[in-house]
Amino acid sequence: MSTLLITDVGSLVTNDPAHGTGPLGLLEDAAVLVEAGRVAWVGPAASAPAADERYEAGGRALLPGFVDSHAHLVFAGDRTAEFNARMSGQSYSAGGIRTTVAATRAASDEELDANLVRFLNEALRQGTTTVECKSGYGLTVADEARALRIAASHTPETTYLGAHVVAPEFADDPAAYVELVTGEMLDACAPHARWVDVFCEQGAFDGDQARAVLTAGAERGLIPRVHANQLSHGPGVQLAVELGAASADHCTHLSDADVAALAESDTVATLLPGAEFSTRAKYPDARRLLDAGATVALSTDCNPGSSFTSSMAFCIAVAVREMGMTPDEAVYAATAGGARALRRTDVGGITVGARADLQLLDAPSHVHLAYRPGVPLTAAVWRAGVRMV
Amino acid sequence: MSTLLITDVGSLVTNDPAHGTGPLGLLEDAAVLVEAGRVAWVGPAASAPAADERYEAGGRALLPGFVDSHAHLVFAGDRTAEFNARMSGQSYSAGGIRTTVAATRAASDEELDANLVRFLNEALRQGTTTVECKSGYGLTVADEARALRIAASHTPETTYLGAHVVAPEFADDPAAYVELVTGEMLDACAPHARWVDVFCEQGAFDGDQARAVLTAGAERGLIPRVHANQLSHGPGVQLAVELGAASADHCTHLSDADVAALAESDTVATLLPGAEFSTRAKYPDARRLLDAGATVALSTDCNPGSSFTSSMAFCIAVAVREMGMTPDEAVYAATAGGARALRRTDVGGITVGARADLQLLDAPSHVHLAYRPGVPLTAAVWRAGVRMV
Ligand SMILES: [Zn+2]
Ligand SMILES: [Zn+2]
Repeated sequence: MSTLLITDVGSLVTNDPAHGTGPLGLLEDAAVLVEAGRVAWVGPAASAPAADERYEAGGRALLPGFVDSHAHLVFAGDRTAEFNARMSGQSYSAGGIRTTVAATRAASDEELDANLVRFLNEALRQGTTTVECKSGYGLTVADEARALRIAASHTPETTYLGAHVVAPEFADDPAAYVELVTGEMLDACAPHARWVDVFCEQGAFDGDQARAVLTAGAERGLIPRVHANQLSHGPGVQLAVELGAASADHCTHLSDADVAALAESDTVATLLPGAEFSTRAKYPDARRLLDAGATVALSTDCNPGSSFTSSMAFCIAVAVREMGMTPDEAVYAATAGGARALRRTDVGGITVGARADLQLLDAPSHVHLAYRPGVPLTAAVWRAGVRMV
Repeated sequence: MSTLLITDVGSLVTNDPAHGTGPLGLLEDAAVLVEAGRVAWVGPAASAPAADERYEAGGRALLPGFVDSHAHLVFAGDRTAEFNARMSGQSYSAGGIRTTVAATRAASDEELDANLVRFLNEALRQGTTTVECKSGYGLTVADEARALRIAASHTPETTYLGAHVVAPEFADDPAAYVELVTGEMLDACAPHARWVDVFCEQGAFDGDQARAVLTAGAERGLIPRVHANQLSHGPGVQLAVELGAASADHCTHLSDADVAALAESDTVATLLPGAEFSTRAKYPDARRLLDAGATVALSTDCNPGSSFTSSMAFCIAVAVREMGMTPDEAVYAATAGGARALRRTDVGGITVGARADLQLLDAPSHVHLAYRPGVPLTAAVWRAGVRMV
């Protein structure tokens, strides 16, 4: 079995306090041994074991690959004109999500697959080695199942989001759409999905509808996660905690009771600053959640409507600027936090036995992800020990 | 003479209303002919002339290279710990600019040159083909002259900023430092500089001192530009306009009279959102300046203390989010606006006779620079017609 030693690492983020200083478990002058796609040894470079291959990191920072636990990447088209009008203060008869639904339905399997691969590669070039991927732009039995089948061929983290919005065909009968989502559509989608998600919001699905969707999914073995409390106070976060959801996503409008519920639960609060950035909306208060003891994840929410970024580094920089996170907390949230939100123990940290998903920065420290906003800092990426970038 | 045709350009930003629609002079399905480092022809791809070489742009967007008219790139060291403490709410006995002054003085010529080249290449990989470069981390006669000599070997846009802060040796006698800056230091620096600049601000140089510095520089043939009204209302903008400065930079705290003075003058208002982003400061109001009729430029202010970004795309995205600019206005400000701030007519636009400084985006439209924040979109860069990236 061939081994690889990545050595002369100036600063190593392990995300394991047992390995080094602070919650990030920082180690200086470190090395990492990779064997069979896994981390086999972590420690000071001076005492590193021999290996078949050596990679000299040149004093740069090595981190776990980013874990992007919230993305909408099975779609066609983009919404440039809508974005441009919104940011230019012009009115625009935007169809919103429905514009993307129409384009996605009209696209071939091959087009959707190629588009997804393009975004996954774009993410990989920016250090992201795990990506969650939702359906939600099909909104028919066949189109939702197709989206998940395509996603499942690229990531195990597939999420059934038939309840993204009410399909246009059911505009006058949302209850019938919920029946479809919890019945025939679920039957078609469950085999390709790990998670079930719902957009619990005014104008999308209310608390009762969201409960029905998540409960039906759970009965089919899908684990709940919830688009919760993004645009207004609502029942999403409480429902997520009550149903043991892995994650409540957005969490912008929270009552004290919501914060307390998250802090006392295993439900991760996943914050998506790209959405607030690109819609000029109020940012969520990460500080409040962290101070209460909640686990926070950062993700891109990458989608063509409200957050068309695939850059986890950008999300870190904005979270530090706007959401009261320290650079350490933001880097942790974008790696270990995302892993927690996906209930994964094999990614999000550089510890013995973990999958060797590693990113080398063209910088001496992980702090540079916030200190150098917008600058592409990815120098190299390994996924399961294989050099990808 | 060999010619290059860049064709199948989906969207071309010429920055010349005579060439296409709107202030950006947008052309669809366009082509650009390059000859002897210059733009020789611009028009519809269907009627493009023959050329020795063809580059197929694949429907993507072609823009003028970014013109970064405000950067501080001759320095050594970084200030990671200071940034980290600031963003983590911890106290830190930061030396501020003086930390970088000490590191810069201690560095060899070779180290400073290598560091500068690293940042210029980093900028180039992000589509920036013209970079202004200031001294200001030497603050002795020899160290300021050295910084400008090194900068001048890489860019014609060199700026004498001996009046960045009062040198530590003169802390008790600022008047004597102004005498040095306007006398012996100016003598040593003028041969290597095109511009003279001063940080006109409480704690740096007051209106009278700034006037003395700019006037002395102008007498030696250097054209004034001013760090003005960044942290507080002050005399900087009025002084810049009065002395016919090419640019007043920062412009965060402006009175109505300041805005009017800029609008009625040829002095460009150069806005630097990276600085406000990285110091959690109030953003300048670009909308107010544009509505009044002022010319606005966007630049990075790249420096290790207050704005360590080299990404003009990031500045565009933040300007749109926070400063009331439309995507079109922000892209114009980052190209043509920067050229105006440097009084350059050969860069900042894609028109016949202009230097062939071109950037191809991995996107169908320039709007994506704001629509896809943080995502590295640079697909190819030509400088003076030579493919660099
Ligand atoms: Zn979402
Ligand atoms: Zn500056």
